Amino acid sequence: MSLHEEIFEQPQVLSTMFTDQRSKLQQLAGKIGKPRHIFIAARGSSDNAARYAKYVWGAFNQIPVTLATPSLFSLYQQPPDLSDMLVIGISQSGESPDLSAVLEGGNAQGCQTLAITNQSSSPLARAADEVIDIGAGQEKSIAATKSYTGQLGVIACLSAAWNGDDEQWSQLENLPRVIEKSLETETVLQRYAELFQEVEHCIVLGRGFNYSTAYEWSLKLTELAYVFAQPYSSADFQHGPIAVVRDGFPVFAVAPHGKVFPDLAGLLSRLKSEHRARVLAISNDHNLLDLVDAPVSLDPQLPEWLSPLAAVIPAQLFSYYLTVAKGYDPDHPRGLTKVTKTY
Amino acid sequence: MSLHEEIFEQPQVLSTMFTDQRSKLQQLAGKIGKPRHIFIAARGSSDNAARYAKYVWGAFNQIPVTLATPSLFSLYQQPPDLSDMLVIGISQSGESPDLSAVLEGGNAQGCQTLAITNQSSSPLARAADEVIDIGAGQEKSIAATKSYTGQLGVIACLSAAWNGDDEQWSQLENLPRVIEKSLETETVLQRYAELFQEVEHCIVLGRGFNYSTAYEWSLKLTELAYVFAQPYSSADFQHGPIAVVRDGFPVFAVAPHGKVFPDLAGLLSRLKSEHRARVLAISNDHNLLDLVDAPVSLDPQLPEWLSPLAAVIPAQLFSYYLTVAKGYDPDHPRGLTKVTKTY
Repeated sequence: MSLHEEIFEQPQVLSTMFTDQRSKLQQLAGKIGKPRHIFIAARGSSDNAARYAKYVWGAFNQIPVTLATPSLFSLYQQPPDLSDMLVIGISQSGESPDLSAVLEGGNAQGCQTLAITNQSSSPLARAADEVIDIGAGQEKSIAATKSYTGQLGVIACLSAAWNGDDEQWSQLENLPRVIEKSLETETVLQRYAELFQEVEHCIVLGRGFNYSTAYEWSLKLTELAYVFAQPYSSADFQHGPIAVVRDGFPVFAVAPHGKVFPDLAGLLSRLKSEHRARVLAISNDHNLLDLVDAPVSLDPQLPEWLSPLAAVIPAQLFSYYLTVAKGYDPDHPRGLTKVTKTY
Repeated sequence: MSLHEEIFEQPQVLSTMFTDQRSKLQQLAGKIGKPRHIFIAARGSSDNAARYAKYVWGAFNQIPVTLATPSLFSLYQQPPDLSDMLVIGISQSGESPDLSAVLEGGNAQGCQTLAITNQSSSPLARAADEVIDIGAGQEKSIAATKSYTGQLGVIACLSAAWNGDDEQWSQLENLPRVIEKSLETETVLQRYAELFQEVEHCIVLGRGFNYSTAYEWSLKLTELAYVFAQPYSSADFQHGPIAVVRDGFPVFAVAPHGKVFPDLAGLLSRLKSEHRARVLAISNDHNLLDLVDAPVSLDPQLPEWLSPLAAVIPAQLFSYYLTVAKGYDPDHPRGLTKVTKTY
């Protein structure tokens, strides 16, 4: 199974989750109950999924979400007081000891613990009270794709389940069709990959729900194409790092319609006119797409809270084709193994 | 007042805080009481100070610390439930509307609110129940230096005050002398800046308490020297981004003695031998300093929890001299203003 095939499996993985797995997920969400506070431990792509959870569970379920600092549990053994929190570990493989240490810390403090993983017999799953199997099937590629969107899907389902919100569920049910359409950007992205072939470093911008997508896109570019990609929220970017952008500097952006769109669109316009950046943007806003050097269209009807599941697809495809254009092998990135154990 | 002068003012700012301001800070900490949970809104360097707070207050005071997603308050107006939390805004200028929005959200939910700022009459200060003036004096340079270490100092003082821990206070009292010694690395760093003059991008590694230092060093390199610097915890770095490092790739690291030291030292050794990276390291471990290409010595007696206040000094000086070596003006970075307002 190649990375390319796994990218194309995503609509099917999510479709199965949103229909066949729905009642199982609702049941588990009911059993756990809506938590007062959530504490998440994750690394790499899974940590980007945790960034998505901060927005979804914060905005739709009013749950404050704290990202763990795993070393306080593993190396320092001076963990914070987690009383009343649901402690969640997110990991494709469930193998990394520092993440299990956080769940064990939660257990020791009497917290409910939950593993969201693609390996339901992993150490992480064994350390947790409850387990949600992402059900993405075996992911052979080193770069996470279907396990990442699977994690986002689980997070979105838990939000809908804790709210008992039929509107959220019907938007979820419609999503695999939208993602299917995202895959049609492939030809355009293959062409852009050739245009940006020489890129060695770039900025990736997103905000709000798609702050996660900016991080995930950057990680794919870094681990596959060895591009030095740096993710920023459009707000943080203006507090200093914007100084780095000058003539022709590549800026990639995730900017679908939504509450943060005007902020991002304003920044991209300024980066074009004042800093003369070269901009590739994933959006469903025609004015923005007309403005940028490399426009990538998203479905116009995409709800903002689910846009990270669709917007990451062209980001994955672009990273894949940029890797190929640079003459590297996307199925065998150097220096990486599928399972990374950190302490 | 130039950036160079402000870097050298830091021992005095901290010395005043730890002695003259001590009883005032203890009084305020007593008035607030040790919080059950802390929620922090910050941007740029202040957000890096918030990263430090996650470790200090987590490890020494068992307080879970959540970093805010300000857009949930400002643009989305769908904030999480902050009951029982102390809501803190950290900002040098106190002018950014998105940060005030988080404090106002905290007020609306009946939370205690605190501003840590260098401008005690700023909008952020006016939005808060309590204000701690960093007391760094006017910071004219666009790049934050003394206001950043001042913020770290306030965070460390609050930890000592909430614990009523005399050992922490005596370590704080000794710190300005250690920082004074850090400033003596200037000549060495000026030479290293010339060695690394051509660098366009780099990785900056830190973990635990010094995860904050890796972020702050990266921000200084980016905003002053226009170097594309990317911060990573040594754990996250191994989950993918390590693939980017090959022959001669510049890696800067903050690795003082402490609980995370063996993890960082092991990674740096691997980056040298297997990836043939070019490593500049700030450390007080002789074996590590002997291993790297550009060693920067820290005081051997530095307690790990306070090492970020001392380790950031050579990072600031290196960023300053790299800017000069590249022919840029550290007092007038392009495209930036001292006060950045984001929404």
